[in-house]
Amino acid sequence: MAKLDFDILAQSGRARRGRLTTRKGVVETPTFMPVGTVGSVKSLTPGEVSDLGAGIILGNTYHLLLRPGVDLVAEMGGLHRFMGGWTGSILTDSGGFQVFSLASRRVVTEEGVSFRSHLDGALMELTPEKAMDAQTLLGSDILMALDECPPPDADREYAEKALLRDARWAKRAKSALRPESGALFGIVQGGMYKDLRAQSAELICELDLPGHSLGGLSVGEPKETMLEVIDATQPLMPRKKPLYLMGVGAPEDLINCVGLGVDMFDCVLPTRMARTGTMLTKDGRLNLRNARFARDSRPIEEDCGCPACRNYSRAYLRHLFAARELLAYRLGTLHNLYFTLNLMARIRQAIENDNYAAFAREALDRLSRGEHRAAADDQ
Amino acid sequence: MAKLDFDILAQSGRARRGRLTTRKGVVETPTFMPVGTVGSVKSLTPGEVSDLGAGIILGNTYHLLLRPGVDLVAEMGGLHRFMGGWTGSILTDSGGFQVFSLASRRVVTEEGVSFRSHLDGALMELTPEKAMDAQTLLGSDILMALDECPPPDADREYAEKALLRDARWAKRAKSALRPESGALFGIVQGGMYKDLRAQSAELICELDLPGHSLGGLSVGEPKETMLEVIDATQPLMPRKKPLYLMGVGAPEDLINCVGLGVDMFDCVLPTRMARTGTMLTKDGRLNLRNARFARDSRPIEEDCGCPACRNYSRAYLRHLFAARELLAYRLGTLHNLYFTLNLMARIRQAIENDNYAAFAREALDRLSRGEHRAAADDQ
Ligand SMILES: [Zn+2]
Ligand SMILES: [Zn+2]
Repeated sequence: MAKLDFDILAQSGRARRGRLTTRKGVVETPTFMPVGTVGSVKSLTPGEVSDLGAGIILGNTYHLLLRPGVDLVAEMGGLHRFMGGWTGSILTDSGGFQVFSLASRRVVTEEGVSFRSHLDGALMELTPEKAMDAQTLLGSDILMALDECPPPDADREYAEKALLRDARWAKRAKSALRPESGALFGIVQGGMYKDLRAQSAELICELDLPGHSLGGLSVGEPKETMLEVIDATQPLMPRKKPLYLMGVGAPEDLINCVGLGVDMFDCVLPTRMARTGTMLTKDGRLNLRNARFARDSRPIEEDCGCPACRNYSRAYLRHLFAARELLAYRLGTLHNLYFTLNLMARIRQAIENDNYAAFAREALDRLSRGEHRAAADDQ
Repeated sequence: MAKLDFDILAQSGRARRGRLTTRKGVVETPTFMPVGTVGSVKSLTPGEVSDLGAGIILGNTYHLLLRPGVDLVAEMGGLHRFMGGWTGSILTDSGGFQVFSLASRRVVTEEGVSFRSHLDGALMELTPEKAMDAQTLLGSDILMALDECPPPDADREYAEKALLRDARWAKRAKSALRPESGALFGIVQGGMYKDLRAQSAELICELDLPGHSLGGLSVGEPKETMLEVIDATQPLMPRKKPLYLMGVGAPEDLINCVGLGVDMFDCVLPTRMARTGTMLTKDGRLNLRNARFARDSRPIEEDCGCPACRNYSRAYLRHLFAARELLAYRLGTLHNLYFTLNLMARIRQAIENDNYAAFAREALDRLSRGEHRAAADDQ
């Protein structure tokens, strides 16, 4: 059996309705992967994440390397089992992104990157091979090749140098796979330079990996720029393989990027926002800590089927957030993840109906009208 | 219909197996009430609390008075409904205990107690009548009369003066009940002085309330002293009414106090300990943060049927606690509450079997052997 299959079931414009089959099961695409940083989608059990409709989650190799350690996870039967029996698929990142955003005293060489743990200052090293070993030990179903995540203001020379090394690293990553490893995705880099993206795409696609991702986006650049880079790069990628946009998960971005042909997403936005009381709705964002919700007996979103909206009022949720009750973070997370996963289901339906452009226009319009209203109300 | 019925179904020594019927439903006694301080048993949903076997929870009037306010809760349909549909019963305390432990600038007069909120310094007042109004607005099924909680080192003169005023306050509380109020419990005080306890019991029992509680215990005195006071006071209480020991919930205390004829308990101990990683087991306490659990694939307690033990290893829980993951507090709380509620079920069974003394001896023995072993292991 192949480690990963991908079938395109329908298309509407550039938007693709696909089916990803990992060694753990089927994932309908376009899909959103909730982030389970250290082996836990914050505040939720694996059963709840599954009930919300998630078929695949993301684990952060950097965090798990530092604590509890990938050897320990392997000894406990791998990440799926360690986290209490996650029955879906797991994609792990390479650890590179956190090395470049959290760790200190980074030194990048051709061999790899050395750094100090942000937890205890321990000196550590990540190489393309070590990143594969770590993800294989975690039992990941989709592994990401180690790459450098250049600073958003990196100049052309820097970006080119990095993408060339990334391509060499991706080749080493492929060679480091073992029979028990999951499927490897290569990462296209090249900063905001479309010609460098094209160069990276060519080098990465040459490796004939089962999937690809677009890295180094949503790192602080204008939304417009991000969409332009995707617009220019996606057509260069093999049509029959899944395309994953890393670190993107705001509702409007999901809608726009699916329209450009992206199949997979992950982002901490829904879960992180939930913990600050910011709820995602079809009509834009709603901040539950706002005093105007103190006596509001309505659910977060009237037609939402999530466990928070089925049982709790805005008034109660606002109270829980004000009192910093643990249940607040949990109920907020349930809503935001349900909203996001449900948005992906609506997106898939619109593609099946070959109606994606109209769906996207309407959904974006409604989101933006809501955003403006919320902003006005908050003043 | 009476606001509260209590039937004694069986007895074993002084231990009583009873059935409390509130206007919301049946509660099997002896019972333990999880604490839902501000209208949430920390980290859990009402459905989970119910699934763990709890039939009644405790709400803290002081906290709810301050935030979100009892008027708001009433407007939202009362506490049961506000918290998302708690279908069991609710007992609320009077607010007195927190006034005497959290608030500042307390002034106690015959009229009541004035104090400043520990949240924002607002000047507030609690009188026997206001405590009834607040609990009635909350929709509480069992209300507690306002009393003073004297400092543990209060002298005899102070304790006597307080218990006499408490009795007058209890009478005023009874007069302040409205048709829609739940059942009122009186509180026996008198510090560690047995004759003062007898005096308080006589005055409170004269009011012919549907239940009573023993207040001012477990406030720092030696365990021995607490048990002696209960041992001396319980026989003075009407046999046909439920007796509630406030603020007690350690496993050994529950076992000992049921043996002295106590029917109801509440305590933050199981839930608070859970959030620090300390798990209650039949073999004593177990601190999940301990390094010896890092690679321990066993559940917290082998024969436990709680959702945490059914799915997660000590190793994973230890990892979650080390990473301060929200799921840790939730899984720990599920276990400790399940353990405590299951202990009460085992206690009820032993009374039904008229085997309580032997059950208690064996359970206490096992707890204490375990405690010693854990202490040795931790060195
Ligand atoms: Zn919802
Ligand atoms: Zn358990």
